[in-house]
Amino acid sequence: MSYINENFMQLQESYLFSTIAKKVEKYTKENPNKIVIKLGIGDVTRPIVPECIKAMHKAVDEMGTQEGFRGYGPEQGYDFLRKAILENDYKSKGIDLEIDEIFVSDGAKCDTGNIVDIFSEDNRVAITDPVYPVYIDTNVMSGRSGRFNQEKGIYENIVYLPVSAENDFKPELPKEKVDMIYLCFPNNPTGTVLTKEELSKWVQYAKKNKSIILYDSAYEAFITQENIPHSIYEIEGAKDVTIEFRSFSKTAGFTGIRCAYVVIPKTLKGYTKDGEEVSYNKLWNRRTCTKFNGTSYIVQRTAEAIYTKQGKKEIEENIKYYMENARIIREGLEEIGIKYYGGINAPYVWLKVPNNMSSWEFFDILLEKVNIVGTPGSGFGPHGEGYFRLTAFGTKENTIKAMERIKRSKNLLTK
Amino acid sequence: MSYINENFMQLQESYLFSTIAKKVEKYTKENPNKIVIKLGIGDVTRPIVPECIKAMHKAVDEMGTQEGFRGYGPEQGYDFLRKAILENDYKSKGIDLEIDEIFVSDGAKCDTGNIVDIFSEDNRVAITDPVYPVYIDTNVMSGRSGRFNQEKGIYENIVYLPVSAENDFKPELPKEKVDMIYLCFPNNPTGTVLTKEELSKWVQYAKKNKSIILYDSAYEAFITQENIPHSIYEIEGAKDVTIEFRSFSKTAGFTGIRCAYVVIPKTLKGYTKDGEEVSYNKLWNRRTCTKFNGTSYIVQRTAEAIYTKQGKKEIEENIKYYMENARIIREGLEEIGIKYYGGINAPYVWLKVPNNMSSWEFFDILLEKVNIVGTPGSGFGPHGEGYFRLTAFGTKENTIKAMERIKRSKNLLTK
Repeated sequence: MSYINENFMQLQESYLFSTIAKKVEKYTKENPNKIVIKLGIGDVTRPIVPECIKAMHKAVDEMGTQEGFRGYGPEQGYDFLRKAILENDYKSKGIDLEIDEIFVSDGAKCDTGNIVDIFSEDNRVAITDPVYPVYIDTNVMSGRSGRFNQEKGIYENIVYLPVSAENDFKPELPKEKVDMIYLCFPNNPTGTVLTKEELSKWVQYAKKNKSIILYDSAYEAFITQENIPHSIYEIEGAKDVTIEFRSFSKTAGFTGIRCAYVVIPKTLKGYTKDGEEVSYNKLWNRRTCTKFNGTSYIVQRTAEAIYTKQGKKEIEENIKYYMENARIIREGLEEIGIKYYGGINAPYVWLKVPNNMSSWEFFDILLEKVNIVGTPGSGFGPHGEGYFRLTAFGTKENTIKAMERIKRSKNLLTK
Repeated sequence: MSYINENFMQLQESYLFSTIAKKVEKYTKENPNKIVIKLGIGDVTRPIVPECIKAMHKAVDEMGTQEGFRGYGPEQGYDFLRKAILENDYKSKGIDLEIDEIFVSDGAKCDTGNIVDIFSEDNRVAITDPVYPVYIDTNVMSGRSGRFNQEKGIYENIVYLPVSAENDFKPELPKEKVDMIYLCFPNNPTGTVLTKEELSKWVQYAKKNKSIILYDSAYEAFITQENIPHSIYEIEGAKDVTIEFRSFSKTAGFTGIRCAYVVIPKTLKGYTKDGEEVSYNKLWNRRTCTKFNGTSYIVQRTAEAIYTKQGKKEIEENIKYYMENARIIREGLEEIGIKYYGGINAPYVWLKVPNNMSSWEFFDILLEKVNIVGTPGSGFGPHGEGYFRLTAFGTKENTIKAMERIKRSKNLLTK
């Protein structure tokens, strides 16, 4: 009799994006003349840059010839890409890593999800709230969450680290001991960041408690201010306590191309119940060689092209384009007196819903009266209630139009 | 304190391909004038067919334009590919499936590996021996194997189903009750197959015991004989008890492109400990949406091109090319009186090592005296001892040359 993994029964259905889709569909059906602008989902809209397209065509041609054809590649990624990552994302910024500390994959969602495989089921997990739901759901599936408390809207064994305007979106160190800590900065969904000093506290905590930090820096390319770390490895000692996740999805618009990487320093250790030290790099390497067969050769050549001089220039222009949208959103909100956070070092603007409306009430008004779609903060966790996310990933034209509409609706939204 | 998943400590290091690589390296270094022919690893050598290359270029161009750009796709795969799979691989063969029973992925290794996520840790697992090591190792990692018995070379909680010349490579039904059964036909490494009648027994067993069959048909495109099922769903009732894994890796040479799919019928149920029925399709869909972000758009367009009239023709030519190699290998072995199996419905020839040599002894002679690399059967499990795998994935020229060498070495190999 084949039994299921009953941890799945603890998963809560996420209706966030499907509810949004249904509401938008209903509205547009009933109001066919209205043009709805979507600033909701965190997906990019700019096409892949020419330098990457060129590299892709070249790799495709190679695959069509006897001499150029490549079959199975290394599970961990081709050296050409791992070297480019090492040199450009780390060494040039004074961070010393080795090539076999970098694992190329087909996406940060896979990496942040699959990483749970190498940890004990008994680890106590701390997660910021609101949060990217993958961190929670993958721990539910693998048995670390405990039961869901319907009343409180939280899992009983997860340690939630609230971030809100009250603590300036800086999570506080947990009072109890935790073994695994998920941090994402620049943050999705709030768009806020930590300074080096603030992040240092977490590294110190992890060192002291032999905990591990799972650090998602998928949005580091959007950082514009000084003293905001792009990599957690800029913090002294972080290599002993942190796995870092990076993605080309937002940096280079690879959401449909699929490429990311994870860094696991060789000095990073986990423990058996008997206290034996084990290298997480070795565990992940074994997991990778057993359950993964490498990222598409063509995709890896495309990612490599990001690091050429021309590639860097083109990518930077895209990032500037999106951050200009963020500026337009921020200034629009400022003009009508809606409080907001983020949008300076991240493509997300996290606004405080005015007039004590709930996130979903604000969503409905914005959709029906202003014809703009955003994402209700409560969809990202209990402490997201009362907030709302707008993304800078639309086109500039739409972003300008959207903010003009919002400004025109000032009385409706803020009175 | 971050604890590791201690199941990983039970994994046995696989030295198979690394030992082969080392031995070959040593030999070629010491004998720089010898040209070694490799018929060892199961990787293809023919370039991607023109129809696929054309489709890939087109998709790449799309991604470089504002109108054609695609971001996140459906986690389960684009409908255009799922439909093509449904129509061509199933409906046209009289198998009725629905589009949401097909999940597109980046490789069958990922699928056969990740599938363990949805099953209870307590399930009893049966695996043929010799076998593709991923089935075993992923169950070790997820806690279903028990301890490794060094003396016997087996995991204590795994039910091994021996296949060898003694049972004509037809695994016998397990005497004890098992919950999960891994079957791969046409088989890797033995290249042997089951008829519909033989496969029916397994479906009946699974029905009777409410077990699940994990059926890997990655090599179905190589079947040349009648009455050999390409899909397990050709067997009545199989949809209630089977997950089927398919891959474009061998069919269309996608080992470096990365695309595969898994079929999970909606009638397939698992059970909670309380006896509640749960749909595996739903569980896998949830797993997919949580830990995966879809296969590259470009890759999916490439896979779609396999199903055009021209694509099918080109793919078929490649398959014929490899099966001609298999014929050359078979006839060569026959000529010098080495017994072999497989090679008729699969790109693998599984030969019985002559003179009671061990698999590794035969490997050494073949490398050092005949300058050919194959794979020792014992590397695939205890019951592979005394066998040896040659693959048809080389070039025709090399395969001819290799068999001429083997024939010339008749006395050395068989006396």
